[in-house]
Amino acid sequence: MEMYLPILFVVSLLFSYSHSSVLDFCVADLSMPDGPAGYSCKKPANVTVNDFVYSALAITGNTSNFIKAAVTPAFADQFPGVNGLGLSMARIDLAVDGVVPIHTHPGGSEILFVVEGTICAGFISSSANTVYFRTLYKGDVMVFPQGLLHFQFNSGNTSALAIVGFNSPSPGVQITDFALFGNNLPSALVEKVTFLDHAQVKKLKAVFGGTG
Amino acid sequence: MEMYLPILFVVSLLFSYSHSSVLDFCVADLSMPDGPAGYSCKKPANVTVNDFVYSALAITGNTSNFIKAAVTPAFADQFPGVNGLGLSMARIDLAVDGVVPIHTHPGGSEILFVVEGTICAGFISSSANTVYFRTLYKGDVMVFPQGLLHFQFNSGNTSALAIVGFNSPSPGVQITDFALFGNNLPSALVEKVTFLDHAQVKKLKAVFGGTG
Amino acid sequence: MEMYLPILFVVSLLFSYSHSSVLDFCVADLSMPDGPAGYSCKKPANVTVNDFVYSALAITGNTSNFIKAAVTPAFADQFPGVNGLGLSMARIDLAVDGVVPIHTHPGGSEILFVVEGTICAGFISSSANTVYFRTLYKGDVMVFPQGLLHFQFNSGNTSALAIVGFNSPSPGVQITDFALFGNNLPSALVEKVTFLDHAQVKKLKAVFGGTG
Amino acid sequence: MEMYLPILFVVSLLFSYSHSSVLDFCVADLSMPDGPAGYSCKKPANVTVNDFVYSALAITGNTSNFIKAAVTPAFADQFPGVNGLGLSMARIDLAVDGVVPIHTHPGGSEILFVVEGTICAGFISSSANTVYFRTLYKGDVMVFPQGLLHFQFNSGNTSALAIVGFNSPSPGVQITDFALFGNNLPSALVEKVTFLDHAQVKKLKAVFGGTG
Amino acid sequence: MEMYLPILFVVSLLFSYSHSSVLDFCVADLSMPDGPAGYSCKKPANVTVNDFVYSALAITGNTSNFIKAAVTPAFADQFPGVNGLGLSMARIDLAVDGVVPIHTHPGGSEILFVVEGTICAGFISSSANTVYFRTLYKGDVMVFPQGLLHFQFNSGNTSALAIVGFNSPSPGVQITDFALFGNNLPSALVEKVTFLDHAQVKKLKAVFGGTG
Amino acid sequence: MEMYLPILFVVSLLFSYSHSSVLDFCVADLSMPDGPAGYSCKKPANVTVNDFVYSALAITGNTSNFIKAAVTPAFADQFPGVNGLGLSMARIDLAVDGVVPIHTHPGGSEILFVVEGTICAGFISSSANTVYFRTLYKGDVMVFPQGLLHFQFNSGNTSALAIVGFNSPSPGVQITDFALFGNNLPSALVEKVTFLDHAQVKKLKAVFGGTG
Repeated sequence: MEMYLPILFVVSLLFSYSHSSVLDFCVADLSMPDGPAGYSCKKPANVTVNDFVYSALAITGNTSNFIKAAVTPAFADQFPGVNGLGLSMARIDLAVDGVVPIHTHPGGSEILFVVEGTICAGFISSSANTVYFRTLYKGDVMVFPQGLLHFQFNSGNTSALAIVGFNSPSPGVQITDFALFGNNLPSALVEKVTFLDHAQVKKLKAVFGGTG
Repeated sequence: MEMYLPILFVVSLLFSYSHSSVLDFCVADLSMPDGPAGYSCKKPANVTVNDFVYSALAITGNTSNFIKAAVTPAFADQFPGVNGLGLSMARIDLAVDGVVPIHTHPGGSEILFVVEGTICAGFISSSANTVYFRTLYKGDVMVFPQGLLHFQFNSGNTSALAIVGFNSPSPGVQITDFALFGNNLPSALVEKVTFLDHAQVKKLKAVFGGTG
Repeated sequence: MEMYLPILFVVSLLFSYSHSSVLDFCVADLSMPDGPAGYSCKKPANVTVNDFVYSALAITGNTSNFIKAAVTPAFADQFPGVNGLGLSMARIDLAVDGVVPIHTHPGGSEILFVVEGTICAGFISSSANTVYFRTLYKGDVMVFPQGLLHFQFNSGNTSALAIVGFNSPSPGVQITDFALFGNNLPSALVEKVTFLDHAQVKKLKAVFGGTG
Repeated sequence: MEMYLPILFVVSLLFSYSHSSVLDFCVADLSMPDGPAGYSCKKPANVTVNDFVYSALAITGNTSNFIKAAVTPAFADQFPGVNGLGLSMARIDLAVDGVVPIHTHPGGSEILFVVEGTICAGFISSSANTVYFRTLYKGDVMVFPQGLLHFQFNSGNTSALAIVGFNSPSPGVQITDFALFGNNLPSALVEKVTFLDHAQVKKLKAVFGGTG
Repeated sequence: MEMYLPILFVVSLLFSYSHSSVLDFCVADLSMPDGPAGYSCKKPANVTVNDFVYSALAITGNTSNFIKAAVTPAFADQFPGVNGLGLSMARIDLAVDGVVPIHTHPGGSEILFVVEGTICAGFISSSANTVYFRTLYKGDVMVFPQGLLHFQFNSGNTSALAIVGFNSPSPGVQITDFALFGNNLPSALVEKVTFLDHAQVKKLKAVFGGTG
Repeated sequence: MEMYLPILFVVSLLFSYSHSSVLDFCVADLSMPDGPAGYSCKKPANVTVNDFVYSALAITGNTSNFIKAAVTPAFADQFPGVNGLGLSMARIDLAVDGVVPIHTHPGGSEILFVVEGTICAGFISSSANTVYFRTLYKGDVMVFPQGLLHFQFNSGNTSALAIVGFNSPSPGVQITDFALFGNNLPSALVEKVTFLDHAQVKKLKAVFGGTG
């Protein structure tokens, strides 16, 4: 059987790198600084299958809140295994009347699968300012192009669940209301760049926890 | 109210392109030739919300077959709305004992969400030839890096369903058995490049419909 | 002198393509359908230097409007020479009190140079919802990351001019007000996904020309 | 008002990363080693609006020199805020008779806006060795495709100023004369690979400070 | 001659970065952790021409083995100079009857040049499961698209040599036999996902050094 | 055996696209217009293995010329099979004293393998204007980063042959002498942007066939 040994030698030339090569994957080492392409890689010797599995999306999001909705992300910051792989996921739970307010993902496109319930979803194009929205039923898939304003809300009589995929490990999310009313952007400035009335801005600043 | 008209004029400078701009999305026009970056775009004027919605994943795949499994893709060829958006989806149905045979996606990484059932899934790294596999339960997410051999099979007592996302509208799929035994690649050649025995090759050629 | 001829022959092997090669540039042929990577290329034989020059940014934008501002783009749809080159430009004219309302560019980052005047500009991060804004003076440069909400307004006593660069020939622009109030997105739906009051939505629908 | 608190909780699930996420931007930490995609990111907590603003382009370049020109870059090395954003800027000052000698940007395409004065600019294609050049006036925009030899010179009677954008934070610049005559590349070797005469090479070596 | 000094000053504005800029190249510092885009860069001051030259491909691979073949890679792990440059090389030595078993490169396409000898090479498409194979003679070039199963074997009477290029510094290589039979993937699992017979799996596990 | 038929049905769901999918490769259809990402794809049904093989590099280039060298490219325009695959090749023949004059590849990095002979090769960095050059012997590999000026010449006593790979199907080539002296760029303009003497420019215009 020693005639078979040489192949191992040959193959080992290809595989036995003297350095910690991670050409296949790059599990994020969150203790290192981030870079433009993502986090540095955990040493392959320390990587286990559990680095590639994430279980937090198994838990129904808590929708006992104002929007009656919850979004649970599995982005690189939560799930280091997606770092460098160019994708990520999230789950969206919508109680009856629940809504994911209008928002964008600055870093990626989104594809949504309705696991259960009925969801009305839509987006607005930038080129022609056209609105595309429709009711989705269990099993329907819908896409939302990168960076465009979009929304989802429960348009049925039961709670709804959707699983969404992104083509980035860190697609980001910018909820318009939160960006305008949930920080210290001065009210006068909000009004100037949105044309919203003062009272409206103040009211939503109170709702979303903003100051100024 | 005419004081408001000018803004429309300004905005229209930005939006009223004289040409059929599709900077936001590029729904595939499957009647045109493909290109390295995907299909040409359908004229935006002809695009409706239905171009961004796909309903075939709502249907349970027919698992009354040899592998007791079915994979239903929503790639650009089936779902033109993902063209140019950098992502796609598929559903995997696994009857009890069902298996998606070992395969690769040459054009993209994969992220899997277990909708129901229990699935054993794994992949093999190229750099170190390490096997990463584990049992996944409802709600678990697992990633499979681009181009690496991987598999999924039902390891529970009930049927299983998974939704998978890809970071390409055309990730492709190459099932190793089908590539080796399901075409006219001569048996002698298969044996030469795989070290499989002649009888084994002939047997699987019969199973997978290959000739030669 | 015939000793020199051979080099021409050698070089011509490299240059005299029998097909219309356009490896250097790809001036958009706007009569052809768009694709995910941009427009098809005009035949090189028909390209002249004028395809690479655009003069419309020489003209001061008309700011006699509601926002007292004008944005003049030199994107691929207006300036076909940028197609395939990965960049574009625009000029921003701001009369006193002029404002470019809060907006995003879904397809690219932006870099701004103040040619004259005083501009207050800012953006809001998605990761931490932090506001970054500041007064810019003549000669200052500021960057706005891809897809993030940002704004610019004249904070001085004279008109202002800025030149902005993008890292895409088609960065797009989505003005939040226009997306929410300038199309047929039903008012009830706007209210549901923005938490704005009904009266506010109706008022801005009137301003921005929306219906529904 | 406590009914509003839950939304903050929901949103915080999305935003309150336990790790230093910088999905929106990646201000260069120049104290860390560079990588293929750029510098590592400064910790977001230490980032201020001033990291996104650069003021050195406000200063007229000193053209009291041999070429009567000055180029002032705002690349990642000078302006860390552009790191990871895919773009950068520079200003070009040209006194009367000033010239930016023929050069390339190995890492990016360029788009030029004439702020004031009259500039003759051009580039040479590689595919067909065609020259594209023209006189540009105030407000004209011209593009120079990545990696191609190009030049700009003042063809008017007054000083000129141009602002240029690049689709890379580190486009680089390789001035042909400087590459050939401004280092220790041996004269004999320069002559061999350029077919320039010995005397010419020696003369320009003296001008550009080269040795050998 | 001092009239020439100013140009050096001007140029130095462009070149004399105060930080260790490596916009041209990024020789891998293998002592630092890898990242999604490759290794961190060695300080330019420590880089010499020898970092860009690799001599191990000058040595004929040892084909005194089971497959009568040897593959010698010049990937980033062996040749740090290719890091960040988007390419790499390898040499393939095939003794008479030598074979490179069926395999994929998950991270890049391959282009092969036959330096000497006669080689039969082929690949299998994923879209249509079509086999493309042919005999190649000295000087022939063949391409193998990213991620697709392919093979090469000596179909002549003399030893053969091929040089292959990749469009990635770390294209990886996954030899199907080695992935299935050369690690601890349990035999029962191999059988389940390949439909190979138990005896065949055990036999090849012995050949390729696998356990389980 | 009919129990095996279902798998074919399942697999055919994945493979039997109703449209001409070419996710694996995109052999250039040179009769169609080019696009920013390359040429449109030939219909897969018309593709044969010969589309992936190119034989012109088997022929020794004719070095009976002024530079005693010949470069034979296998770029997308000559070898349509590389279109969309991200790579290409070329062969360089150098007679004794042969030289490939200083040039750049605007669209790709280069990796060179010395098949026979002795070659002196080098490149000049842009960041620090550093020269990296060395003598290469049979079997040596050297890389030349994208867009940087580089050269190769025969420094031995026998003819030399090199095979070079690129990470682009259309890397382009811009020979500095040819760009400056081989077209209709006016001599006065050449002198202005290069600081070369009038007589030198006229002399080389005659050599390289330029006018003006």
